[in-house]
Amino acid sequence: MTEFFHVITADQFSELLVHFPRLSSEKMPLDASLSRILSEDVIAFEDLPEQARSTVDGYAVKAEDTFGASDSIPALLEVAEPVPMGTLPGYTLRPGQAAPIPTGGFLPQGADAVVMVEYTNRAEANSVEITRPVTLRTNVIDKGEDSKSGELLLPAGMRLRFQDIGYLAATGFPEVSVYRRPKVAILSSGDEVVSIERKPLPGQIRDANGHALAALVREAGAEPILFDIVPDDAEMLQEALETALSQSDVTAISGGSSVGTRDLMKGAVSNLHDTEILAHGIAIRPGKPTLLANSKGKAIFGLPGHPVSALIVAQVFLLPFLRFLQGADLGKGPPGHRVDVTLTASIHSTIGLEEYVRIGIEEKPDGKCEAHPIYGKSGMLSTMVQANGILVIPMTIEGFSKGDKVQAVRW
Amino acid sequence: MTEFFHVITADQFSELLVHFPRLSSEKMPLDASLSRILSEDVIAFEDLPEQARSTVDGYAVKAEDTFGASDSIPALLEVAEPVPMGTLPGYTLRPGQAAPIPTGGFLPQGADAVVMVEYTNRAEANSVEITRPVTLRTNVIDKGEDSKSGELLLPAGMRLRFQDIGYLAATGFPEVSVYRRPKVAILSSGDEVVSIERKPLPGQIRDANGHALAALVREAGAEPILFDIVPDDAEMLQEALETALSQSDVTAISGGSSVGTRDLMKGAVSNLHDTEILAHGIAIRPGKPTLLANSKGKAIFGLPGHPVSALIVAQVFLLPFLRFLQGADLGKGPPGHRVDVTLTASIHSTIGLEEYVRIGIEEKPDGKCEAHPIYGKSGMLSTMVQANGILVIPMTIEGFSKGDKVQAVRW
Repeated sequence: MTEFFHVITADQFSELLVHFPRLSSEKMPLDASLSRILSEDVIAFEDLPEQARSTVDGYAVKAEDTFGASDSIPALLEVAEPVPMGTLPGYTLRPGQAAPIPTGGFLPQGADAVVMVEYTNRAEANSVEITRPVTLRTNVIDKGEDSKSGELLLPAGMRLRFQDIGYLAATGFPEVSVYRRPKVAILSSGDEVVSIERKPLPGQIRDANGHALAALVREAGAEPILFDIVPDDAEMLQEALETALSQSDVTAISGGSSVGTRDLMKGAVSNLHDTEILAHGIAIRPGKPTLLANSKGKAIFGLPGHPVSALIVAQVFLLPFLRFLQGADLGKGPPGHRVDVTLTASIHSTIGLEEYVRIGIEEKPDGKCEAHPIYGKSGMLSTMVQANGILVIPMTIEGFSKGDKVQAVRW
Repeated sequence: MTEFFHVITADQFSELLVHFPRLSSEKMPLDASLSRILSEDVIAFEDLPEQARSTVDGYAVKAEDTFGASDSIPALLEVAEPVPMGTLPGYTLRPGQAAPIPTGGFLPQGADAVVMVEYTNRAEANSVEITRPVTLRTNVIDKGEDSKSGELLLPAGMRLRFQDIGYLAATGFPEVSVYRRPKVAILSSGDEVVSIERKPLPGQIRDANGHALAALVREAGAEPILFDIVPDDAEMLQEALETALSQSDVTAISGGSSVGTRDLMKGAVSNLHDTEILAHGIAIRPGKPTLLANSKGKAIFGLPGHPVSALIVAQVFLLPFLRFLQGADLGKGPPGHRVDVTLTASIHSTIGLEEYVRIGIEEKPDGKCEAHPIYGKSGMLSTMVQANGILVIPMTIEGFSKGDKVQAVRW
């Protein structure tokens, strides 16, 4: 029997995904928060710096004491007590004085600028010649100039980069609130599928999908839980799904791609308590038989059985969804870095299907990129390995011509 | 005293880095090897698939039995025993026979093509009408088509992506040899620097550099070891460096940016046993006072004290170096994703210095990107947070003009 799908478009599928609730947040030590997404605005609770600091080695002065200074007619100032590192100077600079100050030193009260050591002559122990004038705040980071008390330092929804971690360290946040990482249960089903530790008997194959999906889940910043392989048995499949759902935030199951095992999977999902099948069939290629269900607020992805189809659907929809649950926007299309490429061959597509074409991108000496399609049966993982990018052909067009300039995603 | 550097160019500095030895390799479970770099070629030890498999649900046939078949004159074939999943069919298909086969099923001996179920009519239990002809190998992945025994599956030096993990799972590699991840000792020095857990006293600052560097080291796939803050004391600094070297593959120290602490750092490094200072001063801005030493084959990076300078040097040189130690190529310039941008303001630079300009990149509705420079004192981390990219101005030019189209790196 051929099964007819009521397919929905890729956009409609994404629209379903975006209605799942984001995960809760958790407090994390700052050092463990790289690449996590802030769940709350971070507001400064003090000025940074708390007092004006010097950005150079030199002399802290009152700027007006240097006006008119030059090599031929230097300003002669009295040398005050040197500024120590690590404490505030305990005195107030008087007119006519200059205090030796190291880079990063806090200006004494009364000082409002710093003259670089290059523009000074320390002729005597207690006097210094200034040979260039400075204006107010020259070579100074002012109180609160890096951040002001009450200011928004980093907004909720921001993914933390290394420099943001540095900024949070500087402004006094040893912990931050970030979205939790999803736990993703990964189920592989199929009578023919065996663990990669075992030597497959004739007719068996190793569980490639499970391990590739676990890696993809890690790439999304989420935590994979790889379950034992489930045979093609309705009851065992349902039991495995129930266990998976109880231990995870998202369940991804890749089954056989035959109609029989597909029906089994759909049946097992339908039989789960409080579970609604939201979609079964997307107008995409590869990946049409993809299933999506909502089980008490948790998503179940039923991925196609062909490894290439499963991995492409996972990359285009599951990976961005896992980032969405962690606070990111759900972008359109496969995530990754966009590059402009010129096609070296025509690529045909089918109106009504959004197609994901594996491509080889080659960077030319002039920095421009060329791309060619990598064809191959969707059971062949080697084509995914040869490819270093993916090209989306929208459902409204019949393909691209050789020479077309298009945007692709680099793997 | 002003210190004069014998500066070297950025290219010369990279040339020094590339002479450090790569790290040794280690066996890793496949599931822990995402983003790691293979230290050995991976060679297939068997054919994948080991026998021809069907890519569709349908009937395994001898192709010649279907020649000339059509809707009006179908080929009538005898139905053989269905192909089971998970074992090899135990019989040989005879001329005139068709065996029901699921997607992924192994073809019986004697079959050489599969007819999709859509082009068949199972009129009776023991006969089936074929309404379309198939040619040899149609809907079949042939023995060894995905990979052949003895074939190079993945080359040494390749960074493992999720699909590569899947391919290695399919081809039977539960473990892989990858380059070790460097352990990176991170030392922050300075009398004024305090741990981020503490409330700084007046005149003190929190250790922003250490935590930002730890995050950057993680981003490079390496393992940071964050040491206690070292005061500005020659002996303590040297002792801390010795401990750091004994526990790590690379040491990164960020000291004060004043001449005094810079001299301390250089002195402490010079006093280490079997240690050669390879460079002190690079013709770059920011980051000129950077120091590089080789201590018994291990690199010591002496980073500038200004947080922005330290982080930019770390991003442009330390991060690619850490990836290089793990088997990657040492690319030119800051790592990251190149984007073409149009400048919305002119940016001046100094001949003889390679400049790294923080920029704000804005994507326009047409997909094109504009960029503007983000200026600010190099003590101000906020400028690194506002920026989402970096632009390199080569040492031979005086800057870029408003409207220039240039390539930048996105953060």
